[in-house]
Amino acid sequence: MENIIKSKDNPVIKLYQKLSSSKKERLQYGLFVLEGLRIVEDALCENADLTHIILTESAFEKYGGSVFQADLRNTKKIVISNELGRKISSTDNTQGVFAVCRIPQEKKINFVQNGKYIVLFGLQDPGNMGMIIRTADALGIDGIIISGSCDLYSPKVIRSTMGSFLRMNIMVENSAEKLFGMLKENNVFSSAAVIDKNAQNINSCGFSGSQAVFIGNEGNGLPDEISDMCDRKIIIPMYGNINSLNAAMAAGIIMWELKK
Amino acid sequence: MENIIKSKDNPVIKLYQKLSSSKKERLQYGLFVLEGLRIVEDALCENADLTHIILTESAFEKYGGSVFQADLRNTKKIVISNELGRKISSTDNTQGVFAVCRIPQEKKINFVQNGKYIVLFGLQDPGNMGMIIRTADALGIDGIIISGSCDLYSPKVIRSTMGSFLRMNIMVENSAEKLFGMLKENNVFSSAAVIDKNAQNINSCGFSGSQAVFIGNEGNGLPDEISDMCDRKIIIPMYGNINSLNAAMAAGIIMWELKK
Repeated sequence: MENIIKSKDNPVIKLYQKLSSSKKERLQYGLFVLEGLRIVEDALCENADLTHIILTESAFEKYGGSVFQADLRNTKKIVISNELGRKISSTDNTQGVFAVCRIPQEKKINFVQNGKYIVLFGLQDPGNMGMIIRTADALGIDGIIISGSCDLYSPKVIRSTMGSFLRMNIMVENSAEKLFGMLKENNVFSSAAVIDKNAQNINSCGFSGSQAVFIGNEGNGLPDEISDMCDRKIIIPMYGNINSLNAAMAAGIIMWELKK
Repeated sequence: MENIIKSKDNPVIKLYQKLSSSKKERLQYGLFVLEGLRIVEDALCENADLTHIILTESAFEKYGGSVFQADLRNTKKIVISNELGRKISSTDNTQGVFAVCRIPQEKKINFVQNGKYIVLFGLQDPGNMGMIIRTADALGIDGIIISGSCDLYSPKVIRSTMGSFLRMNIMVENSAEKLFGMLKENNVFSSAAVIDKNAQNINSCGFSGSQAVFIGNEGNGLPDEISDMCDRKIIIPMYGNINSLNAAMAAGIIMWELKK
């Protein structure tokens, strides 16, 4: 077995912990972290740019053969003590499988004919963002644009996408002006998802051609100036308590209608 | 101010903690717990049968006036120290508002003409169950039947329903035989939500009349003997990774189609 790292002062371990806890550090280094066997295996399958794979002693025995692949020339492979694994893990029962991954170069959405897109504008809950990305992957949405929302590369978002962030076409555009400019340039019709009785019912408004739907913040929805800039406002008709549809579920139903 | 309870050995505090952590204790006492200002206020609005309302000192100052209502003759009102509140809370930042509530008498679903129902069969994740109940409330589903699933009255389920469990028509029926007997008796057509290419596409299968859709376990779906007992099998068509639609999201999309 390789050298086993036991100290939390090891530079790779310190880097991993910084990247886990701070968006600023992620931006500065251009790196983020992954935890869990399946997501690290997915990352290997999708040729994600892994700088380090870290296994605990126990994980090395179980998964070392499949995870420490021979052809990973640019990836450092590290074994740490089980105790240190528990320390750096963000779960109660860690599998002991970790990786550090390079944040992909600024991605642009590849706008396609009749493409269907979702814009997350001011979304703050990492679990919701992850679930939306995961659902977009299942339903075949063509791209996700993130604007003024929580950090895509936070461990909670990454974990809750269940690997879908590796497959989905995702870009971050925090300038509303550039965002609307990009949609116009690509002839994408925009809809604001709102809670407003005068908005068009998503059952009957139609989503033919290229379409982008804006989903707003969990508590406050979309700012008025943003929904006013969209080509139209749409609403999911609700029967019961309007507070009972959370942002991820609303986005899921809208993506379902978009792809019909 | 009332007598302030500071000891974790106080019988009400011990009861609260037992009910928080154990399904067995909940069944034995016929009681469950609520935490949070909004859910306790919702419970008061809906005339839920509260045996105790417990406020921390800080919560008593802020919310005592609205929560300790004068006409709550059968509800004991208790003030505890802030420290004890942090101890019994299941959140990191407690509002200090707690209640103990009687589990309603065995409910029967009130089957209505053209009623739309969802059956949760073997669902194990409390967060998923809560989100499904919450979404069912928003979309106007007529009733939820829970069978062989996690405990409806666990604090995690109750919290993630956001109060919707108080408004929804929910029953537990763990016998599959009785469950199917009840559906037949009430002329409810049953569909099993499965991942099987030969199943009918939910876009075209139609949901007129009284309908119940069975949603299965997160990892394993519905047991074959249960999906075979349903009148038909249905599938949400997926484009991407089939693992990317979680049980709550799948249930949400199906409920959306059911209510169209």
